[in-house]
Amino acid sequence: MTAYTELVRRYQRLHKLSHLQSIASWDQQSFMPPKGNEARAAAMAEMGGLLHELATAPELAGLLQQAEGESLGDFERASVREMKRSWRASNALPQALVEQLSLATSRSGHAWREQRKANDWAGHLPNLKEVVRLTREAAACLSQATGLSKYDALLDQYEPGMRSSEIARVFGDLRQWLPGLIKAVQTQQANETVIQPVGPFPKAAQRELGLAAMKLMGFDFEAGRLDESAHPFCGGVPEDVRMTTRYSEDDALPALMGVIHETGHGRYEQNLPREWLGLPIANARSMGLHESQSLSFEMQLGSHPGFAQQLSPLLMKHLGAQPAWEPENLHKLLTRVKPGFIRVDADEVTYPCHVILRFEIEKALVEGEIECEDIPDLWATKMQELLGIDTVGNYRNGCMQDVHWPEGLIGYFPCYTLGAMYAAQWFATMRRDIAGLDAGIARGELQPVFDWLQAKVWSQGSRWETPELVQRASGEALNPAHFQAHLRARYLG
Amino acid sequence: MTAYTELVRRYQRLHKLSHLQSIASWDQQSFMPPKGNEARAAAMAEMGGLLHELATAPELAGLLQQAEGESLGDFERASVREMKRSWRASNALPQALVEQLSLATSRSGHAWREQRKANDWAGHLPNLKEVVRLTREAAACLSQATGLSKYDALLDQYEPGMRSSEIARVFGDLRQWLPGLIKAVQTQQANETVIQPVGPFPKAAQRELGLAAMKLMGFDFEAGRLDESAHPFCGGVPEDVRMTTRYSEDDALPALMGVIHETGHGRYEQNLPREWLGLPIANARSMGLHESQSLSFEMQLGSHPGFAQQLSPLLMKHLGAQPAWEPENLHKLLTRVKPGFIRVDADEVTYPCHVILRFEIEKALVEGEIECEDIPDLWATKMQELLGIDTVGNYRNGCMQDVHWPEGLIGYFPCYTLGAMYAAQWFATMRRDIAGLDAGIARGELQPVFDWLQAKVWSQGSRWETPELVQRASGEALNPAHFQAHLRARYLG
Repeated sequence: MTAYTELVRRYQRLHKLSHLQSIASWDQQSFMPPKGNEARAAAMAEMGGLLHELATAPELAGLLQQAEGESLGDFERASVREMKRSWRASNALPQALVEQLSLATSRSGHAWREQRKANDWAGHLPNLKEVVRLTREAAACLSQATGLSKYDALLDQYEPGMRSSEIARVFGDLRQWLPGLIKAVQTQQANETVIQPVGPFPKAAQRELGLAAMKLMGFDFEAGRLDESAHPFCGGVPEDVRMTTRYSEDDALPALMGVIHETGHGRYEQNLPREWLGLPIANARSMGLHESQSLSFEMQLGSHPGFAQQLSPLLMKHLGAQPAWEPENLHKLLTRVKPGFIRVDADEVTYPCHVILRFEIEKALVEGEIECEDIPDLWATKMQELLGIDTVGNYRNGCMQDVHWPEGLIGYFPCYTLGAMYAAQWFATMRRDIAGLDAGIARGELQPVFDWLQAKVWSQGSRWETPELVQRASGEALNPAHFQAHLRARYLG
Repeated sequence: MTAYTELVRRYQRLHKLSHLQSIASWDQQSFMPPKGNEARAAAMAEMGGLLHELATAPELAGLLQQAEGESLGDFERASVREMKRSWRASNALPQALVEQLSLATSRSGHAWREQRKANDWAGHLPNLKEVVRLTREAAACLSQATGLSKYDALLDQYEPGMRSSEIARVFGDLRQWLPGLIKAVQTQQANETVIQPVGPFPKAAQRELGLAAMKLMGFDFEAGRLDESAHPFCGGVPEDVRMTTRYSEDDALPALMGVIHETGHGRYEQNLPREWLGLPIANARSMGLHESQSLSFEMQLGSHPGFAQQLSPLLMKHLGAQPAWEPENLHKLLTRVKPGFIRVDADEVTYPCHVILRFEIEKALVEGEIECEDIPDLWATKMQELLGIDTVGNYRNGCMQDVHWPEGLIGYFPCYTLGAMYAAQWFATMRRDIAGLDAGIARGELQPVFDWLQAKVWSQGSRWETPELVQRASGEALNPAHFQAHLRARYLG
């Protein structure tokens, strides 16, 4: 047996055991009753420790080194590269820390569900402080292993190769034209008449509508589900994708667009290369690329002026006919630009402001420049500065709105805006490669889009490093000009 | 650290990891989409192998021996006894066999869900043959480890200390008076007028009715759920009990009584001793005792003549008022005796016939006296013989009706009828200990019943071996006369 074969065996074992952890995590966030959490957290911490033990088995270092010396094809060489990336990520953290993190984030994430409802920042603070304390420890370990700064070391877990200096450059670019663009769009839209939908919209009907939209977007229901959770996510495993959403009976569009968003994540997972399954090379490339899929679905397609002709009949069918659902008006509803509290409900023009704010706060938090107690004031200041919105005392719709920090996801937020930029770049490329793309979308001919994404992104797994994938897919490196052009064309065109 | 302390640590670890396996298994049977099964089966087989590895760690034998030599209190000594029982059960099977069994039963159990619907015995047969082949191997290993016969070795896993000779004796006793009793009851009931309920009964309303019944029976919804599956079961973990049921829109009572049945299992689990949790001594004592709880709920309480006064208003509220739901008529509906195809729908008088049939077939199957191909004919013959019913070609409602064999649960069926006998014995004892028990039940005063079960059964976990628990709870050994007296009083009284 070659070292490579033995590595394949070990990583496939890890993949199988992680499957159970993924399903338990989905259940924890969707169906688990409250008294189950203590035992679940303990079980997942034990499993987290065990997975960590397998991912840090002392033999792995030698096996990886041996495999690099074996006569391997290009594919196997890339596969070893991804195993090594996974190995490095696991080996930087001592097992005790991994277990403490799993326990602290399970507890904090679970309590957050009730605390957010109760606007209970004081109750949440000690949990968050513990998560941040442990995350700083983790960042210090990762920093030592990679030579990156603490925040970059966290970021690198989600977007391999991306650095905060690069993000600062790109976000700096956005800061130059985005505030002006938001104002210009608001001025233009102030003169437009938009008919508001009249609710209420029963949950059950919204669920059926969401399922119909998933079908339209090609989700495979034999290999996945849609359920409810406090914070929508796409989890499970590639073979069994578990999407969730949340409903408000007053407003049907956020849940619908949320479902379309998660369907982008879901189809990426469902279409990852099956023949490599269980190996790190079969995983989705990065969180930014993942987000480029959800935003391809939600923004590039879902809010496309022509696509309103596809969504309109679905809305009429499931929620009843009303003037608001007419295609032209629907498109207006889906492209309203209005600074607001909630990131996940934000329009695509103001969304980057939410990300810039979180990036700045979490970077300072990890680098030890601020403490958790400082977050609400910073939040209020930056929301005022970036979007002109007052969030003082409104924790629920302010710094407690996201599940990320309570669950220890720090260094992740920038990926959302990277994803928006990749998505704009994909569609710019498709527009060049596929004749009559926009007219086709209006007629509901989505297959060419899915085929393109399948060929260029989904089927590639982690075969290439991000810059090479972007280059191969679009013929150039990441270029934020496509995002700007997309926003100008859609909102000021 | 004493050997006992180290054993506690190891068994608690096993408990935590099994938690994930339990939740994944619940999901597999309730929510998982079909294409997820291959990966799930592989993941659960991997985990099954890992749990087996931990339960068979070479150090355990020495630790158990050492612990027996340590100065321990009575409780710790009993705890070591249960650890040893668990250890013996795990160590009899080689790890490869455990993994093969997990894979084969996952596949077979999953395919069975569709195959049963399609009455597809030919499709099911190869899967079942594989499960039986591996179960025979397992039985041979267990037999070698315990000195018991092959079937007794399987039975001992579910009902420690019970032997097939003892079951043959008890079932022989039943065979003497049960056929006559069934006939006598049928003759008496032939003269009674019973108003049939008029459906359909929408699923959603039945679900609400089931939840209301669970509440009446004291189920803790903060620590458990009710969902749907092809075959109702009570799974999950003691801290988070997952009950399932199935609904038919034509007939509401089977689902209702099924839910009440599973609630008995659920409350046993929810009330196991928390201070010992994670140790084998904190587990439910046996499958027969488990069934004594579900049948205490479903039969002793649920079909009690006075209890109809509690169920009647719930039925009226959730399914609409109709004459069939009047208490006196409802009690008649719940005590109709009529030989039928389906074990889980059988009345308590004919039920033991279904168990006797399965016991005889599975015993012969394990001992190698028959093959899977022989099952349909044997089933047809015995159903004719015991209940006068023709099942030729009707696999769906015949030998394919239960999930047990497809999932490798062989040696389990006798526990159902042992449970019915224990339950009758509990209520005979309560009737002696609690003044005005039956009048209290009619008034909805169920707390004394729950308190008795809590004190005598639930809180005892596996503190005592079954005969001692029965003796302590009821003041005598298992005595089938209580079951006979119960049936005569209820059906011919």
